[in-house]
Amino acid sequence: MTILDLKDVFAAPEQFLDQQITLQGWVRNHRRQKSFGFINFYDGTMLRDLQIVYENDLPNFEEVQKWFIGSAIRVTGTLVKSQGKNQAYELKATELVLEGASTEDYPLQPKKHSLEYLREIAYLRPRTKLFQSVFRIRNLAAAAIHDYFQSRGYVYVHTPLITGNDAEGAGQTFQVTTLDVEKISGKVDYSRDFFGKKTCLAVTGQLEAEIYAMGFKRVYTFGPTFRAENSNTKTHAAEFWMIEPEIAFCDLHQLMDVEEDFLKYIVRDVMEKGAEELAFLEQYTKTPLRSKLEALVNSKIARVSHEEAITILRERHAKKKFDNEPKYGEDTAKEHEKYLTEEYFKSPCFVYNWPKDIKSFYMRRNEDGKTVAAVDLLVQGSGELMGGSQREERYDVLKARMDEMHIPTGKDGLGWYLDLRKYGGCVHSGFGMGFERLLIFLTGVDNIRDVVPFPRTPSNCEF
Amino acid sequence: MTILDLKDVFAAPEQFLDQQITLQGWVRNHRRQKSFGFINFYDGTMLRDLQIVYENDLPNFEEVQKWFIGSAIRVTGTLVKSQGKNQAYELKATELVLEGASTEDYPLQPKKHSLEYLREIAYLRPRTKLFQSVFRIRNLAAAAIHDYFQSRGYVYVHTPLITGNDAEGAGQTFQVTTLDVEKISGKVDYSRDFFGKKTCLAVTGQLEAEIYAMGFKRVYTFGPTFRAENSNTKTHAAEFWMIEPEIAFCDLHQLMDVEEDFLKYIVRDVMEKGAEELAFLEQYTKTPLRSKLEALVNSKIARVSHEEAITILRERHAKKKFDNEPKYGEDTAKEHEKYLTEEYFKSPCFVYNWPKDIKSFYMRRNEDGKTVAAVDLLVQGSGELMGGSQREERYDVLKARMDEMHIPTGKDGLGWYLDLRKYGGCVHSGFGMGFERLLIFLTGVDNIRDVVPFPRTPSNCEF
Repeated sequence: MTILDLKDVFAAPEQFLDQQITLQGWVRNHRRQKSFGFINFYDGTMLRDLQIVYENDLPNFEEVQKWFIGSAIRVTGTLVKSQGKNQAYELKATELVLEGASTEDYPLQPKKHSLEYLREIAYLRPRTKLFQSVFRIRNLAAAAIHDYFQSRGYVYVHTPLITGNDAEGAGQTFQVTTLDVEKISGKVDYSRDFFGKKTCLAVTGQLEAEIYAMGFKRVYTFGPTFRAENSNTKTHAAEFWMIEPEIAFCDLHQLMDVEEDFLKYIVRDVMEKGAEELAFLEQYTKTPLRSKLEALVNSKIARVSHEEAITILRERHAKKKFDNEPKYGEDTAKEHEKYLTEEYFKSPCFVYNWPKDIKSFYMRRNEDGKTVAAVDLLVQGSGELMGGSQREERYDVLKARMDEMHIPTGKDGLGWYLDLRKYGGCVHSGFGMGFERLLIFLTGVDNIRDVVPFPRTPSNCEF
Repeated sequence: MTILDLKDVFAAPEQFLDQQITLQGWVRNHRRQKSFGFINFYDGTMLRDLQIVYENDLPNFEEVQKWFIGSAIRVTGTLVKSQGKNQAYELKATELVLEGASTEDYPLQPKKHSLEYLREIAYLRPRTKLFQSVFRIRNLAAAAIHDYFQSRGYVYVHTPLITGNDAEGAGQTFQVTTLDVEKISGKVDYSRDFFGKKTCLAVTGQLEAEIYAMGFKRVYTFGPTFRAENSNTKTHAAEFWMIEPEIAFCDLHQLMDVEEDFLKYIVRDVMEKGAEELAFLEQYTKTPLRSKLEALVNSKIARVSHEEAITILRERHAKKKFDNEPKYGEDTAKEHEKYLTEEYFKSPCFVYNWPKDIKSFYMRRNEDGKTVAAVDLLVQGSGELMGGSQREERYDVLKARMDEMHIPTGKDGLGWYLDLRKYGGCVHSGFGMGFERLLIFLTGVDNIRDVVPFPRTPSNCEF
């Protein structure tokens, strides 16, 4: 007995018309009448349901009538044109078999559940149409990212997650240990810890990706990243996935070309393969999701320097005050990013050449001595989607900056990172993109907790 | 100025013959003569080098002669047929530019370095031919894995890395904390930890993958996994990547079909796209690497029950003693696995229906009451490559087993896992494959430390 995927049936329904087919999946809804019944059936291979019609000529008709929503079933029947106005085809069942029962109080009933409730039952929410859409888009976007890089000769690198150096020096890391913390009192003897020293979870794979870019020219990472930041916002999670490409012989402006090409490729691919899901999400979120994505693909992304961006923001501030005054040489606030993308450009935009004092040590110092060759890509909804820079490739300049920022450059510190500049280092650039922020942009779902299967946020680590 | 990739030049050299081309990359070797010189050039886009010939008509001839191995350079020149017997083509340089200098004591000199030495300079080893081969195969295998699943409708799921439950109950996990361990004395107050409870790094994503299989029918994970096992063997690392597919409506024998099809697909794809790298590795490792892979692709993988395997092993034990006597109802030893794959079957083999007491709680109990529907795929060299099972889908049987093994089934424990069986659970199966073990099998490189970019093992967490 061949079991078909619903996706394959709907891909060529005419081919299966009046044929007998067998499917396995679940009951999304069940409406019972005296001598017949309707089951909304799905099997997870596509978003759409198939309506199953069964009648009292089935030998187990009475048993079938008792099946609850959520039950796993096998159905054999004939695909016919439907008389109903909600669907073109339906399945006239000749055999219905229960594969796994459900209960009357099944937590997902055919009504609108709140997102908060669905988070509590995160082990059941992937069965809802909303999360079937979100997590299929997540899958499509992940596949598109790999396709983009693989087809352009980038090598996928797995950078380490447990690290002995506090990487970006950015703090807020999770410590990793096998010491029995219950038995610690006073000075900790790290020589007895698993790695013989203090270790934490990596906040970036960039520095190691640079190592590989110096061997393979173009590389990328795609893996989990951890930040122990105690912020309860809609765009922060303690565990998230990040993509970090790193490219040798590439300067800041070439990097922006890559970022733009990359983003458009993903959006185009997801729009093509996830059309039904995006249509559903547009309806669900009541946002002009598809026209936003369409516009991105069809226009050139604006590029302004940080200085130009501040000028734009100050002009607006003169007319209508922001809560935070935009200032040259200083960081921008969320409301500024929102204004730039949602009102001024009405599209994503690149802001480059940032004041050096608010950026990381490894970014290349510009000739003006005040800015670094960094670039942020801002997008509507998720704010900063990508953060990149040309890396400082000059040994002396980097050494001076690391010393200035008290970043250890010895054998136990980032000496190897500095040494990359001694052994055939070259102009190179890279960026990082938070995968969940991309998903917020792609799905219109505005809370990071709803685009991650099992969100990890302060005080929350369920499943 | 268009910069080409060496890969594209070698893909169609006739097209570039007698043309002027420009490349950017690094010096692998440099032989200087009085009035000319040879540079072995690579750019990381393929394994092969290109020989650059330059003469004293270059304006910077004397400067070029001083370039050390490892330097980053840009070269413009004419591709010509080579007179040398080691290569078909070479590049006659018309312009050579230094992009990044190297030093005379560059740690990678053109001689054979030991693997131990190369591990110490793990930030430079990706530049050697050995590690260019290994990590390109790693990339190809990763891409093949995604391709396999994506083209067959599996949904890629990111299961959580930080977890509040000790998952398999397997122990040996890393604790994750933001508490200041230096200041702990006595009872630990986990309500003050980041997640408000004790958390650790996940040893598997399987249980969460099952959640998604119940929504999407076929899913897979591909992410890092952590085991704080204090074993210094060639096949164990504390941080490794794992692939865990989970399939609804799939029993143990169908699972073996998937495993076999999956493995053959990857091997075939890597053999096709990594032919040069495999040829190099075969030479380097002095093993019949390609014929081993060829044989796998072209034959059916043997399937024996655990009982049959023990019978085979006992027959051999009667003639020639193992160190460990093979016993019915007990686990097999490394030497047994080695005998089965390397001598008896001379190929990988499946061993299924294992004694229940040595396997995990979630594996489906067979009718005999003594075994569970588990299957290990054993391969030459890396031993157990895949471990899978049909999952226990019967609520009562699973509940009894969890109680028996003292696995908490309440709201704070694995109650949700049990409840999956209450809400439309169905026959389902899945397996896990250690990515590095696959790489040991694919590359013939026998130490896990040499197939991971930056290995994490007891007392070792560098870079």
